[in-house]
Amino acid sequence: MSNFKEFMEHSTKLVSEAMIESIEKLKAPERLKESMAYSLQGGGKRIRPLLLFATLDAFGKNPEIGIKPACALEMIHTYSLIHDDLPCMDDDDLRRGKPTNHKVFGEDLAVLAGDGLLTYAFQLITEINDVSVSDQVKLQLISELAIAAGPEGMVAGQVADMEGERKQLSGEELQFIHERKTGKMLMYPVIAGAILSRATAEQLSHLTQFAYKLGIAFQIQDDILDVIGDEDVLGKPVGSDIENDKTTYVKLYTVEGAKERLHTFITDAKRHIRACGIKDDFLISICDFVENRSF
Amino acid sequence: MSNFKEFMEHSTKLVSEAMIESIEKLKAPERLKESMAYSLQGGGKRIRPLLLFATLDAFGKNPEIGIKPACALEMIHTYSLIHDDLPCMDDDDLRRGKPTNHKVFGEDLAVLAGDGLLTYAFQLITEINDVSVSDQVKLQLISELAIAAGPEGMVAGQVADMEGERKQLSGEELQFIHERKTGKMLMYPVIAGAILSRATAEQLSHLTQFAYKLGIAFQIQDDILDVIGDEDVLGKPVGSDIENDKTTYVKLYTVEGAKERLHTFITDAKRHIRACGIKDDFLISICDFVENRSF
Repeated sequence: MSNFKEFMEHSTKLVSEAMIESIEKLKAPERLKESMAYSLQGGGKRIRPLLLFATLDAFGKNPEIGIKPACALEMIHTYSLIHDDLPCMDDDDLRRGKPTNHKVFGEDLAVLAGDGLLTYAFQLITEINDVSVSDQVKLQLISELAIAAGPEGMVAGQVADMEGERKQLSGEELQFIHERKTGKMLMYPVIAGAILSRATAEQLSHLTQFAYKLGIAFQIQDDILDVIGDEDVLGKPVGSDIENDKTTYVKLYTVEGAKERLHTFITDAKRHIRACGIKDDFLISICDFVENRSF
Repeated sequence: MSNFKEFMEHSTKLVSEAMIESIEKLKAPERLKESMAYSLQGGGKRIRPLLLFATLDAFGKNPEIGIKPACALEMIHTYSLIHDDLPCMDDDDLRRGKPTNHKVFGEDLAVLAGDGLLTYAFQLITEINDVSVSDQVKLQLISELAIAAGPEGMVAGQVADMEGERKQLSGEELQFIHERKTGKMLMYPVIAGAILSRATAEQLSHLTQFAYKLGIAFQIQDDILDVIGDEDVLGKPVGSDIENDKTTYVKLYTVEGAKERLHTFITDAKRHIRACGIKDDFLISICDFVENRSF
């Protein structure tokens, strides 16, 4: 596949179909399966699976070996959104223009659907049955995923974010939150792709830096879009950060300053990926997508 | 160690200390760590770790190799209690005589502490660093844990239990719920112990049957104690099942009938363990403990 748009659509299709298939085959109460599938089908950019498939592609690997880790990653991302939307957390009624999980299935089932997705994610990685993927590689994928999503990663970021609400944060504090809340789960697909491709230590180091910079850039663009984005294109209301008096990159540095920082992070990310000596066209395209996205 | 009581205390100490140590070393927000540790220190019988250590002992294995899986298991059990106590679930203010997690830390942190414990559990298993435990064994431990705790296991049981509340259930439906809600997580430590001990297929089959029967027996005793137990010894109010018009073994079969069933399941469990050809004294003692416990 030479065309990035085509590659993006194919990768979204691969992971979306595999996720629904794996939920359907579960021997579980129907309402639970419906609730899990509902949020998995909520749309979204599927940027994390895309990063994983693009990394595999850069090393000339078969995308098949990435399907289960990509599903696991997207399930964990989805569980975090379900729990984040709960009345006791952000109390959101809408997510990407659709009623949130607890609005449709009730709070109790939403909690359990989240718990189910999180647990099932780890099971999926144990089920990779390609002979080229060793037990050691599977364990590494599980370990990195748990670290990225757990109490030192995403969960820590959620808590820090909660504690930082309505408090004036410094640029450093803001970065601390983002590195954990969204950063580590954006880095994971690149690291997972590198592990599956048996990248060298030097390549892994560059790829980690690439993913780190890209994750921060992604978050800066999120903050910019909350100010200058188009609600219809974004699928969510804009202006909520200002309304909630939240510290953002825009608040700290203005829109122009945030854009400059965004460009610097993207430039750095590209530099690292070019230093890897791999087929980097799709990863570079993802950088451009993150810098220029409107949704 | 030849004395069961001593073995029980030692096993509780091993897992309790290891859990707190592993939480303390986390680089995570202090409130999150406090919230996670609070519920892990909530007391409880630690029957699951005990089963794991007793199985390892029966095969003459070093208990050290079971510490991390035992911690993982107890963390998942604990997360399920935290989420189960939430206002949108059972809405409980007390657990073993202490305020529930969300009463102390707030609902938002309680959700996240549960999420953190669940995720961290899987990380812990990847961290077993005994050379006698192969990557294949670690993966099997992770796979079985995810299956026991996930949408086909404990989470399915929670959903079925929720759906079955205030509905008259048959004995079969009741068993379906218990097999998932508590049964699989009571079977896991025995299966984990067997995997770590490299039990033969025949031994594994007997141990699985043993753990299944024991899990049902445990649940029957729970239902009996809710009727004839002593609140002070139990550490929770009795009579709540009748109050909530819940289907239980006592409701279906009377106290006497439930006790007979309990005895049958315990006898079956003992039969299976004796057929294994292992040093079974502590596992037999656990059977007696489950049949005669008052807390």
